[in-house]
Amino acid sequence: MTGPARTRVACCQLAPRVGDAAGNLARAEAAIGAARARGAEVIVLPELVTSGYCFADADEAARDAIAADHPLFARWAALAGPAVLVFGYAEAGADGRLYNSAAVLVPGRPPVHYRKTHLWDREKLFFTPGAEPPPVVPTPVGAIGLLVCYDLEFPELSRSLALRGARLLTVPVNWPAVPRPAGLPGPEVVIAMAAARVNRVAIACCDRSGDDGRGARWNEDTTIVAADGWPVATPDADGLAVADLDLAASGDKQISPRNDVLADRRPELYG
Amino acid sequence: MTGPARTRVACCQLAPRVGDAAGNLARAEAAIGAARARGAEVIVLPELVTSGYCFADADEAARDAIAADHPLFARWAALAGPAVLVFGYAEAGADGRLYNSAAVLVPGRPPVHYRKTHLWDREKLFFTPGAEPPPVVPTPVGAIGLLVCYDLEFPELSRSLALRGARLLTVPVNWPAVPRPAGLPGPEVVIAMAAARVNRVAIACCDRSGDDGRGARWNEDTTIVAADGWPVATPDADGLAVADLDLAASGDKQISPRNDVLADRRPELYG
Repeated sequence: MTGPARTRVACCQLAPRVGDAAGNLARAEAAIGAARARGAEVIVLPELVTSGYCFADADEAARDAIAADHPLFARWAALAGPAVLVFGYAEAGADGRLYNSAAVLVPGRPPVHYRKTHLWDREKLFFTPGAEPPPVVPTPVGAIGLLVCYDLEFPELSRSLALRGARLLTVPVNWPAVPRPAGLPGPEVVIAMAAARVNRVAIACCDRSGDDGRGARWNEDTTIVAADGWPVATPDADGLAVADLDLAASGDKQISPRNDVLADRRPELYG
Repeated sequence: MTGPARTRVACCQLAPRVGDAAGNLARAEAAIGAARARGAEVIVLPELVTSGYCFADADEAARDAIAADHPLFARWAALAGPAVLVFGYAEAGADGRLYNSAAVLVPGRPPVHYRKTHLWDREKLFFTPGAEPPPVVPTPVGAIGLLVCYDLEFPELSRSLALRGARLLTVPVNWPAVPRPAGLPGPEVVIAMAAARVNRVAIACCDRSGDDGRGARWNEDTTIVAADGWPVATPDADGLAVADLDLAASGDKQISPRNDVLADRRPELYG
């Protein structure tokens, strides 16, 4: 007998710095290599990993923004090899606007881009919110959904990705440090655990570390949550979190002999 | 200077037993008295507190079911005095069907009844799911929403209650015992914490204890969660959980200088 097929998912908790694009790319590329060396089949990097987060103004946000057809995407797809790669970046739109975007790179296919639709605080000063819903991307390991940071705090979005067939939600994040009662998971991890459980879908949240060169602090709460809602991986000393997930389990929504988390919905009552 | 107005909320974690209606009422009435003695302004009892939960069959479920105009409601309203009282009961509908119902008793007003809309497992053998959305009930301490147990696992419902102005969600529950990783809150408590945080609404979940006379075990996870998503009360040795909540805080949805958890929604993207 063999167990269920497992998919190795890695999150790389990095420390980008505003104004250090070359260093950011080097750190990200090293992390992709480290995740590959661990056999990761899905690799998730943080939000805005190419640029850092704590921009002083719109000019600074624009400085390291890249277009969605930038050569970086092909280069990182090559680095990721057979793995699916997910990461956040500052996008210089063809319309002249900036977006807080993320991409899913699936081997042999064009990148799938998503523009964060729920902007957090000062992001509203620099970025335009996306106008399209988050994608569900077919991949060799199953359908992967994509959200960016504050998006996850809207349960409507995680639900919609589950209804559209996502087996794994990948979530590049930058979670600013907030206090929490002793002994409890961070606030966004609680939200991820609940979203996983009520949708029976695995969720990989990749947070950042470092101070961004601006003195900022972060929860550094990178967590991979299984479809049953329990955390299964947090970062090691190198910032790498690795979990072997049964993504087929994310396709099974039955949680009792007579209950299915999606079929039990009563949308006519939710208006 | 005075602090914000506080509302004292109590959950009474009881041990109903199937087939012991008189004992169930006596236990509940003693708990209402104990909560009143602590100055509770809102008192929450468990799901199906009058009848117990683990019915062998539909006949047994029907045996202690009561109509929505049963004298019990007036008697318990009198016992609760100036407090708002919320509890679950097995309802014998005028249509001949059984419902897993709950009531909100507000002093001086007719009871508001709700029939659980999301039935758990064997409940489907005995009960008919409700056809109406859960209520938001105006009370002297603010608008109170009502859900019953598994309802809470549908984030659409907690969201809809928050959008309709609920400051406190009251949730009579019977949470069957399930394993959890060491050091983490119970699964439904995680869901309640997330629902509180993403909606900025307080939530009072009243679980049950005992074995129902049928050997069942329960999480016994009664928890009152503040609008910031953190638990603020669990039961004492007598099963009583008491918290002083700032329900005005539940009306303030702003969580950063530029973010409001309800105004930030993008419903056009959730379809």
